Amino acid sequence: MEWTQPHLLGLEYYSADEITHVLDTAEAFRAIATRNDGQRNDLRGKVVVNLFFEASTRTRMSFELAERRLGATILNFSAAGSSTSKGETLRDTARNIEAMGIDAIVMRHSCPGAPQLLTRCTAAHVVNAGDGAHEHPTQGLLDILTIRQRLGRIEGLKVAIVGDIAHSRVARSNLHGLLKLGAEVTFVGPPTLVPAAFRKLGANVSHDLDAVLPEMDVLNMLRIQNERLEGQPFPAGHEYSRLFGLNAERMRCAKPGVLVMHPGPINRGVEIAPDVADGPRSAILEQVTNGVAVRMAVLSLLTGAKCRG
Amino acid sequence: MEWTQPHLLGLEYYSADEITHVLDTAEAFRAIATRNDGQRNDLRGKVVVNLFFEASTRTRMSFELAERRLGATILNFSAAGSSTSKGETLRDTARNIEAMGIDAIVMRHSCPGAPQLLTRCTAAHVVNAGDGAHEHPTQGLLDILTIRQRLGRIEGLKVAIVGDIAHSRVARSNLHGLLKLGAEVTFVGPPTLVPAAFRKLGANVSHDLDAVLPEMDVLNMLRIQNERLEGQPFPAGHEYSRLFGLNAERMRCAKPGVLVMHPGPINRGVEIAPDVADGPRSAILEQVTNGVAVRMAVLSLLTGAKCRG
Amino acid sequence: MEWTQPHLLGLEYYSADEITHVLDTAEAFRAIATRNDGQRNDLRGKVVVNLFFEASTRTRMSFELAERRLGATILNFSAAGSSTSKGETLRDTARNIEAMGIDAIVMRHSCPGAPQLLTRCTAAHVVNAGDGAHEHPTQGLLDILTIRQRLGRIEGLKVAIVGDIAHSRVARSNLHGLLKLGAEVTFVGPPTLVPAAFRKLGANVSHDLDAVLPEMDVLNMLRIQNERLEGQPFPAGHEYSRLFGLNAERMRCAKPGVLVMHPGPINRGVEIAPDVADGPRSAILEQVTNGVAVRMAVLSLLTGAKCRG
Repeated sequence: MEWTQPHLLGLEYYSADEITHVLDTAEAFRAIATRNDGQRNDLRGKVVVNLFFEASTRTRMSFELAERRLGATILNFSAAGSSTSKGETLRDTARNIEAMGIDAIVMRHSCPGAPQLLTRCTAAHVVNAGDGAHEHPTQGLLDILTIRQRLGRIEGLKVAIVGDIAHSRVARSNLHGLLKLGAEVTFVGPPTLVPAAFRKLGANVSHDLDAVLPEMDVLNMLRIQNERLEGQPFPAGHEYSRLFGLNAERMRCAKPGVLVMHPGPINRGVEIAPDVADGPRSAILEQVTNGVAVRMAVLSLLTGAKCRG
Repeated sequence: MEWTQPHLLGLEYYSADEITHVLDTAEAFRAIATRNDGQRNDLRGKVVVNLFFEASTRTRMSFELAERRLGATILNFSAAGSSTSKGETLRDTARNIEAMGIDAIVMRHSCPGAPQLLTRCTAAHVVNAGDGAHEHPTQGLLDILTIRQRLGRIEGLKVAIVGDIAHSRVARSNLHGLLKLGAEVTFVGPPTLVPAAFRKLGANVSHDLDAVLPEMDVLNMLRIQNERLEGQPFPAGHEYSRLFGLNAERMRCAKPGVLVMHPGPINRGVEIAPDVADGPRSAILEQVTNGVAVRMAVLSLLTGAKCRG
Repeated sequence: MEWTQPHLLGLEYYSADEITHVLDTAEAFRAIATRNDGQRNDLRGKVVVNLFFEASTRTRMSFELAERRLGATILNFSAAGSSTSKGETLRDTARNIEAMGIDAIVMRHSCPGAPQLLTRCTAAHVVNAGDGAHEHPTQGLLDILTIRQRLGRIEGLKVAIVGDIAHSRVARSNLHGLLKLGAEVTFVGPPTLVPAAFRKLGANVSHDLDAVLPEMDVLNMLRIQNERLEGQPFPAGHEYSRLFGLNAERMRCAKPGVLVMHPGPINRGVEIAPDVADGPRSAILEQVTNGVAVRMAVLSLLTGAKCRG
């Protein structure tokens, strides 16, 4: 297909064909991302700015490695000590960075919609690396790629996403992508973290993991941030773990070929037990590997498209 | 001309011919800095250390991009968590970095004269990226380049620099460069921030923007740091804005072809109104673009010169 | 010799032949590390992660420069704001980084043995850049290389290491390497910092610098961390300096050809007087230069060896 999208703001804005094309492109890059002599020149002479207004280790490293493997010129910007802390508007920061002569901006921001705002005030390609509780589309893509590699398809699969759905951009990006490719998505968690209103987005909603577990092809266990549980009408850690944690006992009730995923970093013993995380059904490390390949694919496709053409 | 200067410590120490030669060289690099496939090898195998003892986003990024576009090997050093915080002297830090085998040091430091001290204890080329309230010569050069591009010349122009002149290294570097190239410079601001003593440096001094405005070819509006206004016998923000802020009304009293500049980051609504900053007379984003080109020119020229020859 | 070691965890685990082979390789790289056009492609396409859980300026910069000169793809990871601070285990952090497709990890950690743990949970080459008070093997190697260059041999030399031996990984790595190459090592310092038990490791122990000074070929003066002296039954700064500081007066009692070393950063006037640190017997800056060469040699050798072959 001819690629025309200049930005990746969310999987909500991509068609099924576009998502599939990114996945196919990522498959080709995967060999490079894992082979250790895989240095390419696709983005040689192109400048990519990593504009992170929220702390990040693994997503930033994954993007940076994807950029380096493509031969890009990289500038890292983090909010600490930046002009932003001197009261500069996001628009001015973006236009200043753009005036230096750059091609693409990878942006993480606590404010939903911030990457979209960028597209209106710069001519650079914009990749959303997480905007508040809105979307984290490259995480969605790498999750879907991992499912496709392990189970051979997306269509018709039943995928449970378990945890703090209300605050999760990972859940939203997965939902949009999976629905478009024909999967059935069930959000699972306590009512305080999984409001029934999410049914309007096209997901099933369940507050009982054990009830839905036996039907699921994929279990995507989100990280529980303990600070989210505090002050909620819901008990912390061990109680969450008892009701929604994935352990060996629960795995015996799951389908034999069930796929276990987690976006990391893992709270071992909270949302997932160590033996499950490290077991044969877990694809957690493949997700990480696919992350680099997906980001290479996205950067390569976007920068080949016209921006404000 | 044959370039012999090994360092750039300030425009005070450069001749008119040398300044013009940097500007001419920067013009040639500008095409590369804005074209996105512009990767060069001028500094391939040369090591440049960015030694920033003060926080900086845009100057650091601009230097880093210039270095990358020239193919340099880059090491970033920031003061936080460094040996300096363990009580090491600047001289020892510099000599240690030099002993690793480096070619050039780009240095920002709160202490005026710190880059000059470096030249005495290392054999590396030194570029001053701002030393206290002394000089910020690459900012001066990029401002002058922007004026030359927009107005076609420097000689005979009337340039107002408006704001906190007393604490501004940008004002000092502009003054030295502009005077050498034949412009007339007027410092404008409240008496607490623009002492009459600056006349000794060769500038006109005015405390009344509206009085001098109609004659000016260039208005360089410096950023007002609110913390400078506090505790001063001078009112803050809105009062400053009323007397010295550049807005649409004042623009109507300016020359039709007046050029509006700002070193950034902008306090919109304080020293400059949003519609003026974004208007047709503003060259603010061109300044940013020229910053990369000027820094490429400086690094390229200096590293081609003999150091302690 | 055929190199087979996949990791560098400590000089304790290398044979005399292996240490000598690293030194010989480093000699060859030294010309590159000091010549400024020395860009190589030995590690092109290989990814090295600098995984620093403790703050470091000079060691990190030295490793990074070595990696850049070899053409490696570099990812920098520091603990601040990382997944580790979100409670992720070291093993999970390591396996996640590895899953991105990397070749080598350079690791500094406050916990002795942390790099060894890494080798058990990843297939990447591991270089110990300092683990608690255990080892700092590249520092040991660069110290030994400096001695060999200046004095022409290691065998039969008498080397004093002076200072806070109890907390020093530098002392341990020097000890293991020097003993294997046939030198005699004497640890010197106050009893609180140099326990007699160190004799079991093969070192001489002395609490009287002046008594052993006249016999020594090398004086390696360790940095005194003032916080180590506080709360100890031993007086601070000036008292330490009077008993164990190396000054011009003491130098007159030393052998004429004595070599003075320091791993930096220097506390001028505490463990070493300025005129001694900068004098003709000092090899402090050569140590820094050799650091880059040794790290190039180590990275080049390790990544050429099979890992988990």
